[in-house]
Order: sequence, then C-alpha cells, then structure tokens
Amino acid sequence: MSESWLDAVKWNAEGLVPVVAQEAGSGKVLTLAWMNREALAATAREQRAVYWSRSRRKLWRKGEESGHVQAIKDIRLDCDNDAVLLIVEQKGGIACHTGRERCFYQQLQDGRWVTVEPVIKSEQEIYGRK
Amino acid sequence: MSESWLDAVKWNAEGLVPVVAQEAGSGKVLTLAWMNREALAATAREQRAVYWSRSRRKLWRKGEESGHVQAIKDIRLDCDNDAVLLIVEQKGGIACHTGRERCFYQQLQDGRWVTVEPVIKSEQEIYGRK
Repeated sequence: MSESWLDAVKWNAEGLVPVVAQEAGSGKVLTLAWMNREALAATAREQRAVYWSRSRRKLWRKGEESGHVQAIKDIRLDCDNDAVLLIVEQKGGIACHTGRERCFYQQLQDGRWVTVEPVIKSEQEIYGRK
Repeated sequence: MSESWLDAVKWNAEGLVPVVAQEAGSGKVLTLAWMNREALAATAREQRAVYWSRSRRKLWRKGEESGHVQAIKDIRLDCDNDAVLLIVEQKGGIACHTGRERCFYQQLQDGRWVTVEPVIKSEQEIYGRK
C-alpha cells in the first residue's frame, strides 16, 4: 500500500501529530495522545490505537498492559492536516491510566479544577503489583 | 479570582496547550486548536472559545469574523494537565474555515484521505469579499 497518505500529515518539529480518541458508542472524548509516522501506520494496519509515548519515547500499543485496547472504527484528518481524530471502541470501558472512563475528568468550576468522574478500577487492579 | 487554575495547566515549550472542541448537541468533535494562558483565561471569562492562532501569532476570538462563535458549556482538563476539552454550542453550525460543520472531514479509506463531509457555506459567503 502506498504511504502517500502518511506524507499528507503535517508532522510537527518532533515528528508528531496530536490525536483525539472519541468513543463510538457514547460519543465521549476519551483522551488526547500523540503519534509519529510509525504509530499512525501501525494504527491503520492493526486497526487498534498505537500511540507514541513522549515520556517513554517508544511506541505504545494502547492496552498492551491494561487490556484497554482501542479498536478503530474511523480515522479522520483535519482541514490543515495537523490533527487526527480516531473513533474507537474502548475495550473494558476505561481509557485513562487512573482507572477512569476517560482522561478529561477535571472540570473547571469557579476557578478550580474539580474531579467529577469516578475511578472505575484502581491502577493496582488494572496493572497488578509490579 | 485566583489564577492558580491556570498555573495547573502544563503549557508546552511554546506556552501552549492543545484544545479539543466538541459540540454539545451532536457530540461531534469539531476542531483541535491551541491556547496560551491568556486565551484560556479569556475563554473562561467570556464563556466563548478564544484560541491562540499559531499562524497569525495572536489571540483569535473564534467567530470574530465569521460569526461562528463557540459558546462554552464545559471546560475540562485531562489527567496529566496538558490537554483541554471544551464542550461548546457552535453558532451557525459551522466550525471549519472551509465552511464545513467541522474540521475533521477527511476520512482514511484504503490508504487515501477522502473528503466525506460537505461544504455548508462557501468561504466567500462566510467571510465576504475582502
């Protein structure tokens, strides 16, 4: 398969593009993560979200430790080719490493960030004792 | 009002944070844009989306030319404080400068990006002759 679709993406100075993952069923925005060219190619090929972990500096097959895989339903690119939207099916119903449904659980209320979404599973339950 | 909530945000090396805008009614992800500290403060104060235009290097009150204002319903911060989600009411039903409902109108199909969403209003209709 030609890789010209990967050339169309405007990668930033670090070779990355921001990626929004939205749950197909609920419509909730789950997370914002980053991909490099290799991660986006793998995502399309494997039909599961593969991100670039900026902290660990390596490919991160979402769910590889937790089982919380994101199965791909749709891959979109924005008007100026520098942001990607994934429509996914979130396995296990948990996208966030904190054990919440999603990462956007802090809400601005009267000048304070308030945690408004519950932990579904503790990190220990998800990742086990190391 | 204290500005400690702005200090909580992990601004990147350019002093920016990526911001996802989602339509409250349809649940559609409209756009990914960027904010600096001043833009996020203005967004909260004015209850409309105010972004930082990286190309024009200035604050961009979304809709200032087009009328396509994004009224704020909810402001969220993610688990590691480096991405923001806005739930908005999109005035005029058009978020994208191309005159489409939203910016994510290119869909990956068999290794090609295909435009799958229509132009609702031409750019000329939106911005007029300059």
